[in-house]
Amino acid sequence: MENVDSVNAELDITKYKRYVARAKCFDIEAGKFIAVLNELQAKENGIFTGDRVILKIGNKEKIVIVDLSEEIVGKNEIGLFADTSHYLNVRDGAEIEIRQVGVPASINIIRKKLDGTPMSSKNVNTVIDEMMENRLSDVELASWVAAMYTRGMSTEETVALTKAIVKSGHTLDLGRKPVVDKHCAGGVAGNRTTMLLVPIMAAAGLYIPKTSSRAISSASGTADTMEVLAPVEFSIDEMRRIVLKTKGCMVWGGAINLAAADDKLIRIRHSLSLDPRGVLLASILAKKVSVGAQYVVIDIPTGMGTKFEDMKVARSLAKDFLNIGSKLGLKLECLITDGNDPVGQRIGPALECYDVLNALQNSGPRDLLDKSCQLAGALFEKCNKVKRGRGYSAAFDLIKNGKAYAKMQEIIEEQGGDPDVKPSDLPIGTHKYIVEAQGTGRVRLVDNRNISRIARVAGAPHDKGAGVILHCEQGDKVKEGDLLMEIVSESASKLNFAKRLLDEIAPIKLQKVVLGKYS
Amino acid sequence: MENVDSVNAELDITKYKRYVARAKCFDIEAGKFIAVLNELQAKENGIFTGDRVILKIGNKEKIVIVDLSEEIVGKNEIGLFADTSHYLNVRDGAEIEIRQVGVPASINIIRKKLDGTPMSSKNVNTVIDEMMENRLSDVELASWVAAMYTRGMSTEETVALTKAIVKSGHTLDLGRKPVVDKHCAGGVAGNRTTMLLVPIMAAAGLYIPKTSSRAISSASGTADTMEVLAPVEFSIDEMRRIVLKTKGCMVWGGAINLAAADDKLIRIRHSLSLDPRGVLLASILAKKVSVGAQYVVIDIPTGMGTKFEDMKVARSLAKDFLNIGSKLGLKLECLITDGNDPVGQRIGPALECYDVLNALQNSGPRDLLDKSCQLAGALFEKCNKVKRGRGYSAAFDLIKNGKAYAKMQEIIEEQGGDPDVKPSDLPIGTHKYIVEAQGTGRVRLVDNRNISRIARVAGAPHDKGAGVILHCEQGDKVKEGDLLMEIVSESASKLNFAKRLLDEIAPIKLQKVVLGKYS
Repeated sequence: MENVDSVNAELDITKYKRYVARAKCFDIEAGKFIAVLNELQAKENGIFTGDRVILKIGNKEKIVIVDLSEEIVGKNEIGLFADTSHYLNVRDGAEIEIRQVGVPASINIIRKKLDGTPMSSKNVNTVIDEMMENRLSDVELASWVAAMYTRGMSTEETVALTKAIVKSGHTLDLGRKPVVDKHCAGGVAGNRTTMLLVPIMAAAGLYIPKTSSRAISSASGTADTMEVLAPVEFSIDEMRRIVLKTKGCMVWGGAINLAAADDKLIRIRHSLSLDPRGVLLASILAKKVSVGAQYVVIDIPTGMGTKFEDMKVARSLAKDFLNIGSKLGLKLECLITDGNDPVGQRIGPALECYDVLNALQNSGPRDLLDKSCQLAGALFEKCNKVKRGRGYSAAFDLIKNGKAYAKMQEIIEEQGGDPDVKPSDLPIGTHKYIVEAQGTGRVRLVDNRNISRIARVAGAPHDKGAGVILHCEQGDKVKEGDLLMEIVSESASKLNFAKRLLDEIAPIKLQKVVLGKYS
Repeated sequence: MENVDSVNAELDITKYKRYVARAKCFDIEAGKFIAVLNELQAKENGIFTGDRVILKIGNKEKIVIVDLSEEIVGKNEIGLFADTSHYLNVRDGAEIEIRQVGVPASINIIRKKLDGTPMSSKNVNTVIDEMMENRLSDVELASWVAAMYTRGMSTEETVALTKAIVKSGHTLDLGRKPVVDKHCAGGVAGNRTTMLLVPIMAAAGLYIPKTSSRAISSASGTADTMEVLAPVEFSIDEMRRIVLKTKGCMVWGGAINLAAADDKLIRIRHSLSLDPRGVLLASILAKKVSVGAQYVVIDIPTGMGTKFEDMKVARSLAKDFLNIGSKLGLKLECLITDGNDPVGQRIGPALECYDVLNALQNSGPRDLLDKSCQLAGALFEKCNKVKRGRGYSAAFDLIKNGKAYAKMQEIIEEQGGDPDVKPSDLPIGTHKYIVEAQGTGRVRLVDNRNISRIARVAGAPHDKGAGVILHCEQGDKVKEGDLLMEIVSESASKLNFAKRLLDEIAPIKLQKVVLGKYS
């Protein structure tokens, strides 16, 4: 509180700070708009690394990020990389006016939020707008996220944030169609329910324009897995065309500019993995609103190694989803699911496709098939497609009668893949390592997180054929020498790395049936 | 709270992420250690802009900051600027191993502080150490500052932070000498008490190795003003030599690596002007501890336009200073002073020197002389140099008998300036604009902040001769046409800018004595 006034004093002054420097051009693309200012001179003008300044030459202006150096540029010089010098159309020696960007209105809003003052919907829009104009530094954005984390967010703030994020990117308009969507809060290895749910919903006549992410810390994201079967990078117009034709798609969200502000916020949240509840909700729901979804099912896995290990936290999250969703006009169904061990038998992009293609033909891992039909059924009931209590069997019928599989083939073809691909065609790695039980007992734990780590070290998700095949699940009784799992890799050296990690972390733990032996 | 585990999962994995890329060298000094990685490849490896990675070639390693680009570097390439390529001694095409820095231990400490858990002294040291090793990003540091701001800081945390900041830089050791110091919490224009207090203390036989800052938002910092009389940039060894000879000095703190961590924290606090109380205290007291001060007087101006406008805040700050100071073994005296209007008659580097040189010879503005003797007197009493109640007159005696002025000449000479400089020799700007009263009344306000703004726009502190001369002070009765102030500049165009600003902000406000006239 005590410094608000000194801030203002400082800010006012900046309005009048400007100076002129001669361009020193470097023939290198920086990939973004950066200017290198002479350190001493910049500091004299109250400009610091990471600040934004406006460069002006003639009537052309551009906001750029400041980098400081004593070496690259001398006094009265400004270093420009090719992107900026081309944009401003300047050459070495041109005189450029440098002035501080008017202080972003966000500064005051962020400070007040740090002091505990709630943000109005207008305030939230201001911060998101200024962030999208690249006017806020990492320091400012991190302070904002920290403020939302420590001070919490009201329903109104969360709804406002969601709407502001939606507004920041493209939106998909399919006309007056029934649109459904699905989200999983993550943390469970395997768990490719999206790839069953999408064809099931589309086969039932509902529109499901699904965007998915790639893996950050897991062995494969839905986009990574789907990519084994067909391309996943499309523009929003291509996506619309696909969905209008097949009713469903599975594309990478990163290539489509939906909820654009979210990507910028995720980069900030990444460092400390700081997920203020309101930001988490807004981030997820903005994507649903952006594709025009009316009905959404949300899978919240709970248990060992998931994002929400505590059932109480999972329940309160579900309540928050319903509350915020209703304010946004979404009809939501939240399912808290058992995430204690992996879903499906295979982990890694191609390996998961193997399970998915089998499950769509009513074979393959039952847990994957069952969970997918549960989620699909809940969504059917939510949008009154079938009567309450009949959702699961309606979904399963579409598996049994082959309609879901046919729809999957249609989607694969429309996205540019081979609709007739068989599980045996998939590019699975040929370097394998078999893990056997070292003793007799009952499988107590198949650790999602450690299974993912091993699959990653074996090459997933980059190497599509790498991963892990599980041959046991929680509760199985095993004897010494029984097959527990296989590690699959495309290269001998990565397989070796994975073996070494395996020794360290033992992802499958047995509870010994025989606890001691006396004779 | 809910994501601690997903963080850990992610962090563990990074231990195993590394890849090799070929160097692409750019013959440009970047002024810091930066590597440009291929964006897609880096993201696949969980590396983002601003992250730290270790580059390894042979047995040479270096931690660098990551920048991402799709344009500068292709897949399996790494862009290196001259600083880094020279350090690692690599040429184009050399194979460099890139691996993520082990996740800084600070991440967990910062997250916990955000959740409200106090930091142990070991935790504080860890964050400061990792910050000094450049292992923390702006996002992480901003989150830390925001956490200390919203969660507050205990006495223990503040003491630990002060000690950690002291440890991060050089310290001055003068042997077993009586060392005193002074700090002003700022916000008052003019107010060059340091330049009187230092020679007074030194003339009395006390050691006062004073470091000062340059202006950020004000018209002149003590370092800017002193620089008119003598150089102020010295190494710590040069500073020690000067102080051991003359007992006092006035040098720029920025050139000496005292309390090095503080500079890094100030950059983060700058953006939002976020001053968590504990960080503010630590920042100030660390500098005092670093120069070995035993007795310190702290001037806390309060009133209109100062940093602490509210008397209650000023009082609580004084209490905090005494509390933390005593834990650090410092004997502190805090004076809350009237900061409602400028101290001294002249504002701007050379103009302030004019007042200072006159005041040292017992002429010039009485408020400057009086305040300086108050502060010096308080310090005399604190270190038992004189009896309680006799401090002010002891200080004033040193002015009257010329010893303080002689000491000032000695210090100026020792720092490389001209000891015989006269006020009339000072390089005062020749472009002047006279401001007259527009009506009759009593001077109600001489606004520190707006006076500073006008002085800055006129060229201060960069143009040493620019600034403002005040011809009235609060309470004066003036008639229409009376001289209120002059703006002084080195250039006609800057003077013009300042005149335009003057019309906008009217820094001197009159209360009309005659409120109406009827006839």
